Amino acid sequence: MNKEQTFTIFGGTGDLTFRKLIPALYNMAAAGNEQLNGRIVVIGRRDYTSESYRKLAGEWVEKFARLTYREEIYDKLAERIVYYRMDFTDEDEYRGLDAFYTEIGARAHIFYFAVAPRFFGTIVQGLKSVHGAGSGKVVIEKPFGENLLAAEELNVRMEAFFGPDHIYRIDHYLGKEMVRNIQTIRFANPIFSNIWDAGHIECIQISALEEVGVETRGGYYDHSGALKDMMQNHLFQILTIVAMERPEGPGVEEMHREQMKVLKALCMPEAAAGSMVLGQYGGYRKEQAVDENSATETYAALRLFVENDRWGGMPFYIRTGKKLRKREMQVAVVFKSPVPGVPQNILNIKIQPTEGVYLQFNIKRPGEADEIIQAKMDFCQSCSYINQMNTPEAYERLLGACIRGERSWFSQWDQIETSWKYVDAIREQYVSGSLPVYSYEPGTAGPKEADEMLRQHGHAWFD
Amino acid sequence: MNKEQTFTIFGGTGDLTFRKLIPALYNMAAAGNEQLNGRIVVIGRRDYTSESYRKLAGEWVEKFARLTYREEIYDKLAERIVYYRMDFTDEDEYRGLDAFYTEIGARAHIFYFAVAPRFFGTIVQGLKSVHGAGSGKVVIEKPFGENLLAAEELNVRMEAFFGPDHIYRIDHYLGKEMVRNIQTIRFANPIFSNIWDAGHIECIQISALEEVGVETRGGYYDHSGALKDMMQNHLFQILTIVAMERPEGPGVEEMHREQMKVLKALCMPEAAAGSMVLGQYGGYRKEQAVDENSATETYAALRLFVENDRWGGMPFYIRTGKKLRKREMQVAVVFKSPVPGVPQNILNIKIQPTEGVYLQFNIKRPGEADEIIQAKMDFCQSCSYINQMNTPEAYERLLGACIRGERSWFSQWDQIETSWKYVDAIREQYVSGSLPVYSYEPGTAGPKEADEMLRQHGHAWFD
Repeated sequence: MNKEQTFTIFGGTGDLTFRKLIPALYNMAAAGNEQLNGRIVVIGRRDYTSESYRKLAGEWVEKFARLTYREEIYDKLAERIVYYRMDFTDEDEYRGLDAFYTEIGARAHIFYFAVAPRFFGTIVQGLKSVHGAGSGKVVIEKPFGENLLAAEELNVRMEAFFGPDHIYRIDHYLGKEMVRNIQTIRFANPIFSNIWDAGHIECIQISALEEVGVETRGGYYDHSGALKDMMQNHLFQILTIVAMERPEGPGVEEMHREQMKVLKALCMPEAAAGSMVLGQYGGYRKEQAVDENSATETYAALRLFVENDRWGGMPFYIRTGKKLRKREMQVAVVFKSPVPGVPQNILNIKIQPTEGVYLQFNIKRPGEADEIIQAKMDFCQSCSYINQMNTPEAYERLLGACIRGERSWFSQWDQIETSWKYVDAIREQYVSGSLPVYSYEPGTAGPKEADEMLRQHGHAWFD
Repeated sequence: MNKEQTFTIFGGTGDLTFRKLIPALYNMAAAGNEQLNGRIVVIGRRDYTSESYRKLAGEWVEKFARLTYREEIYDKLAERIVYYRMDFTDEDEYRGLDAFYTEIGARAHIFYFAVAPRFFGTIVQGLKSVHGAGSGKVVIEKPFGENLLAAEELNVRMEAFFGPDHIYRIDHYLGKEMVRNIQTIRFANPIFSNIWDAGHIECIQISALEEVGVETRGGYYDHSGALKDMMQNHLFQILTIVAMERPEGPGVEEMHREQMKVLKALCMPEAAAGSMVLGQYGGYRKEQAVDENSATETYAALRLFVENDRWGGMPFYIRTGKKLRKREMQVAVVFKSPVPGVPQNILNIKIQPTEGVYLQFNIKRPGEADEIIQAKMDFCQSCSYINQMNTPEAYERLLGACIRGERSWFSQWDQIETSWKYVDAIREQYVSGSLPVYSYEPGTAGPKEADEMLRQHGHAWFD
């Protein structure tokens, strides 16, 4: 990379910037990563100077950075941070930004839109006044649009300005070690690859459970809900990696092509009633900025099929929710039982909070009886690696990938488009069928109807 | 069991009795196992009284019993122990034994031949003078005979006296938890059973390595050697369990039938030179009671094939030896690599000294590179069970099985016969080809020629 890249954050005084972006930049600096060595322009409406911002940001780094805070490292990073005060919703103010970039000699740009999606269009419009902005890169967070139509409209605008290859749509789960590991686990191990199909697997369960509620994000969340906030992007992303055929080559395009095939083969549940459970946690309507009559789902569970040769007839169960009894993201592959009554083999890929793989298998109970019991073979990745501090956290890795132009770590537009089509159609079915959003107690496993959905088919959630 | 069984040990002052049998009887008593509640008649040539013998045996129990020595438990056991002094090689003395049994009211017998195999025939001959002895059970230890001819002769004599179903030929490895577990691991887990064949497996390695040398058994061992002492019985036994088809039912006969099919399909190496390595540890010829020009092998490694549909063309490597760098008994199943250069998946069944199963598989190295590294999923049975003291040791379990008449824990004659045929033929080839017995340093992995044998075929011992 010859040209020094200027890294601009829209939404520089928001939670995301303080909790994730600045700490990630610090970690990269502390780890000696010199990929990002240009200016960091932080844009916000609030009344900071560069100096007061640096001081405040330093406190967040102390609190949230993965690597130990060391003043001499932060000071060097802080020198590169400039606070630029403007209202990014006001198109007129972008001429001033342009002048500022000229003044500091910024030429190659990375823009990070750390703002609500509804502002994306406005910022793009404003950046038209900034020389060279259109040949820069842009990093955006989920959700991309609020439905298919809005997403398409936004995509047209962004692609027209930046060009399709310069848009980096973050899907945090793609940055997680164990998500990137799924491919290796599947394809580099014959013990798994040989039986990775509906003939040998009874069902696959993908769970993304959260302990927290909406916290300070009630306003955004109430217009989104679990289907849009988690299913449409993260869970579908993981599902396609779990289900795709082996890509023909190591590149982004090959993998992406296989993921798309899975998405297109995703089968709409025929009767929404039996294949979908939405829930809302008790007390949600009293959360800050949430409508007091809100019907937004904070929990969603789906029973899906991928209709192709490999997966025909085998259910994928995916679920996500807030205010559940534990935080846990995992993929559980439940193999068919060899003999009725013998417990299934289960391969469990743990994504967070602990990272690892374990296999539940059958052995003979020690002693004289011939009884079968279950045992676990366990590989705990977070045990051996995170303690050694050498697993880059998701943001560091994503920022690094963006700087280097590695697009395999990001979502592609056609994936998003297809996911939206699917989720929109599901929601449509749900609404037209007047299906209920079940209430569930905070701190539980979610609505009992989600357990019932599996029980009907002889299955159970793997916990 | 209505009739109280009298348990008689021939060789009551030997190592086996003191180190294993008496401690096992103590453990069974301490665990509240009341299957064996009759007299324990200990026969020896030495000059003990029952009282002095009980005292001595108590010391061995303190030293070797798995369960903590508690006087009140040992005292109760000791009351049932009677020392009977006789020379069991003298046929005339058995009339006295008969009278003694009558005196103590012994009717149902279990005889344990804890003596060198060359005395088995003599004891059987003597027992003809003991009323009711022929309808008792007899437990014998390996080796059964010294070659096929001797084994056949002995078997005819023993079967004529006791009847085929009353002979319990101990193969200690059959009593080990993880050996009995091989069947469950294979057949109750589709992740393994689906790929348990030559199409998916590159090779299977069975190792029984010992750290000790011949110790006090030089006289016996020098006439035996590794092929007869370990291969012919234990390693072939395990090999057949690893390789057999799923038995049609849970009974002994069904399993035995499948094991026999494997033994019969065992393929003699065409060129002994390339499929067999024998070794002798440095210093062996100076061991007590060993011939100073001995050519006896203390190490043996074989490359074998099981020529049937499942295993055709896939090598089994089996090895055993004394004075090696570690004590370890294990089965390693090396699956074929999916892609050249990607490390193999290996399922490792650990039999002793630790018990467990682990799977070596491939994951992505944590971090940004896409490099593949190996990881281990581990299930340590000895960690979770032996600590809880509920794994009966081999002798307790074998004695219990004999008392109950459960023959699946013991070797059957036709297995022994077939194994002998095979081992005799191998030795014959070796001798007629004048192949060398390689010397190896104590404390090493054995002769380097054994490594070379695998390397020629692109393999390596799994350690």
